[in-house]
Amino acid sequence: MNQDRRDRLRDAAIAVLAREGGRGLTHRAVDAAAAVPTGTAKNYFPTRDALLRAAAERCAEQYHALAEALAEAGPEQGAGAGAGPGAGAGAGPTSGPGAGPEAGPADAARLAALLAELLRNTAGPGRTRVLAYLELQAEAARRPWLAALLDPVAAADFAAHAHLLWTAGLPAGPERARALTLALHGAIPHLLTGAPATLAAAGLDDLDRFTRELLAAVCREETR
Amino acid sequence: MNQDRRDRLRDAAIAVLAREGGRGLTHRAVDAAAAVPTGTAKNYFPTRDALLRAAAERCAEQYHALAEALAEAGPEQGAGAGAGPGAGAGAGPTSGPGAGPEAGPADAARLAALLAELLRNTAGPGRTRVLAYLELQAEAARRPWLAALLDPVAAADFAAHAHLLWTAGLPAGPERARALTLALHGAIPHLLTGAPATLAAAGLDDLDRFTRELLAAVCREETR
Repeated sequence: MNQDRRDRLRDAAIAVLAREGGRGLTHRAVDAAAAVPTGTAKNYFPTRDALLRAAAERCAEQYHALAEALAEAGPEQGAGAGAGPGAGAGAGPTSGPGAGPEAGPADAARLAALLAELLRNTAGPGRTRVLAYLELQAEAARRPWLAALLDPVAAADFAAHAHLLWTAGLPAGPERARALTLALHGAIPHLLTGAPATLAAAGLDDLDRFTRELLAAVCREETR
Repeated sequence: MNQDRRDRLRDAAIAVLAREGGRGLTHRAVDAAAAVPTGTAKNYFPTRDALLRAAAERCAEQYHALAEALAEAGPEQGAGAGAGPGAGAGAGPTSGPGAGPEAGPADAARLAALLAELLRNTAGPGRTRVLAYLELQAEAARRPWLAALLDPVAAADFAAHAHLLWTAGLPAGPERARALTLALHGAIPHLLTGAPATLAAAGLDDLDRFTRELLAAVCREETR
């Protein structure tokens, strides 16, 4: 089987999921979206579950590619002393130490900008991928095998954010990284839906202010 | 048309959405789930969009009923001086003043317990409603009329949490209420999926500890 065609079909499965939801994900729709002869998707991914798995694996790959690209422009580039090249979103706890607690407010501002960029990607160029991911997440609540496949992707996000807080020199205890990660996860569906009262109530109508205030809210120093 | 039967069909639409996703939401499936003669759902809700609207309106009603029930057991019952009966989750900013900033740590503990109870409801008795809500939220990203219908429900949640923080005597600025609300929204899909690595990374494997730590993370006093 041809790897390029396989990737094209997987991208088409993501596009179909995003455009039509789980309801629209059929072999025929994937063939049409990939502009390949009818029967091709069925040949590569014989069942609907195989289509779902292909889309989920592709989402995970795209997430890791995005995380690596963002790490290039991560908050520890520039100001931070001794920042390791492997650090950044999605790099997880195994990557080497970055700027660490010596870093200053400039790093916090840079992290806020990075997170705002991530959220802008969600609502913009990444919209298809993220919509497909939400569909897969909903399907995962009914399919343990899919939940198991997505589990490491979601879990890695918490470690990545803990690492980002740490490299930005911000207080980075697990409960802060959890609050930050979950708030970002919670923001995503609201951004994709774009309903005005919810965006305003959540502060998501200004993403730069949003991430600055979110970091400030979860990273205040203890007084007692 | 019969209101009882109408409600029964709307509950059936929610059950079908939860069990089979948007893909399974057909008039025939709703008839079967409601145990009514074939054609009944189509009679009450002629199109698929009408079925979606019926499910969304029922979800909103159930959310408000749950919010009122929780307000009865709200954090300002007992310890708080002068707590108004209308206050609590979902009561929003229009309800009268509760215990307010004079309240003590017991109120913070009570609020943590209330939020843990809400999350337990999500993963337990409320699972069907919340799964259906996630499906509707995903559909809303493709249907502006559905986004408009769900908008006030989601927006009200931010005001409700701001009010809860205030009645518990916790720091309750908008950025704290936003962080809290979004983190709870972000926790819900992870709870429904129940994937172990994500639950552990998010701290959702112990809901009482989770809400205590989340409140502590978003409600620290400022030092500078």
